[in-house]
Amino acid sequence: MQSSEIYLESLIIATPQEGRNLAIKLARKSIVAIQTDPEIRKKLRVDYAQDTAQLIASAQVIAIEFQTIAMANNYWKS
Amino acid sequence: MQSSEIYLESLIIATPQEGRNLAIKLARKSIVAIQTDPEIRKKLRVDYAQDTAQLIASAQVIAIEFQTIAMANNYWKS
Amino acid sequence: MQSSEIYLESLIIATPQEGRNLAIKLARKSIVAIQTDPEIRKKLRVDYAQDTAQLIASAQVIAIEFQTIAMANNYWKS
Amino acid sequence: MQSSEIYLESLIIATPQEGRNLAIKLARKSIVAIQTDPEIRKKLRVDYAQDTAQLIASAQVIAIEFQTIAMANNYWKS
Amino acid sequence: MQSSEIYLESLIIATPQEGRNLAIKLARKSIVAIQTDPEIRKKLRVDYAQDTAQLIASAQVIAIEFQTIAMANNYWKS
Amino acid sequence: MQSSEIYLESLIIATPQEGRNLAIKLARKSIVAIQTDPEIRKKLRVDYAQDTAQLIASAQVIAIEFQTIAMANNYWKS
Repeated sequence: MQSSEIYLESLIIATPQEGRNLAIKLARKSIVAIQTDPEIRKKLRVDYAQDTAQLIASAQVIAIEFQTIAMANNYWKS
Repeated sequence: MQSSEIYLESLIIATPQEGRNLAIKLARKSIVAIQTDPEIRKKLRVDYAQDTAQLIASAQVIAIEFQTIAMANNYWKS
Repeated sequence: MQSSEIYLESLIIATPQEGRNLAIKLARKSIVAIQTDPEIRKKLRVDYAQDTAQLIASAQVIAIEFQTIAMANNYWKS
Repeated sequence: MQSSEIYLESLIIATPQEGRNLAIKLARKSIVAIQTDPEIRKKLRVDYAQDTAQLIASAQVIAIEFQTIAMANNYWKS
Repeated sequence: MQSSEIYLESLIIATPQEGRNLAIKLARKSIVAIQTDPEIRKKLRVDYAQDTAQLIASAQVIAIEFQTIAMANNYWKS
Repeated sequence: MQSSEIYLESLIIATPQEGRNLAIKLARKSIVAIQTDPEIRKKLRVDYAQDTAQLIASAQVIAIEFQTIAMANNYWKS
């Protein structure tokens, strides 16, 4: 039922910016895990990218994923 | 009232990718715990997998479950 | 105004699976605390168990409650 | 603009159950801080207590407040 | 684009109650940062203070801000 | 697919107020990452800044981002 694709090798990542990019990737992969049909996703994407409520909800998912990634990297303190 | 099924033996898991898969599983099992009828779930699934707002909300549940799993595994640091 | 029922004796619990069950229980008890009439809750339950958006929102509450329980038990590491 | 009422003397509390009750209280006091008119709140309450989506959203607020309270009390471990 | 106003001097604050008040202030300042026109905000406020779903959503923002403030003050333990 | 722009050099920042500003910036950059067309974003912005539900949802994203930033800076304690 779940994709056997490996999209997360490690949470340890060199820079905060890469951490942001990984957070966005993880959020997207969750969508992929639930809606597995790429054609349907493509069609859905057009809609939600123009719906601010859904854009904000997506930003919230990214914020949570990023919090985990930032913790894992000790906030890139040193 | 609650299912007696054991679906979570441990939060300790070998790799980050398995952590993602477990997060998705936990999110799904919460749905199962509330809507226990598999026929109704099957019917509902068709709908929500085409509704981006619900896909994003699902991604948020996965993000929270994953944060817990990542903490439990000390972010697979070593 | 608040129920005097004691439904949470301890957050310390033997297994991760019992932790999931407790998370579901805590989520339900919050609903009970706000909507105290069991007849109304019973009627409402039929509706929301068929509404995927609400099932997903419930799963999110469970995820947050479980995070707290998992922290309390040091993720059942040993 | 903000109420000068003191409704939170301490986060340190004797038992997990009192922690749940405090979480519910904090959630309610946030509503009071925004909608200061008790008559309007009373009228609104009738509506939302019969709306499952809002009951679930309230349960989520309680879950977050409880997480903070549980952390403050080191999960009542000893 | 962002207001140059300084509304957060410190997260360290004397009492839990002041922590609640600061949480409410931070939530409000986020709204101000996005909707900068005070006239529009005033008009919007009348609406959302009578909409329970939005009151509950506001309570959730306050709960998250308060969690951060409580952590910063080590839960006012001593 | 993702912007190659570097908008987050570091989570370490001098003051709590700058932390708030960074939280707002991160929330906005997440929206930009999903809706890459500046013209569409500009049009969407007019709508959501007058929709209180979306303003509150935005405030929630900011609260989560700020929690991460505050943790990274040890709450600017010293």
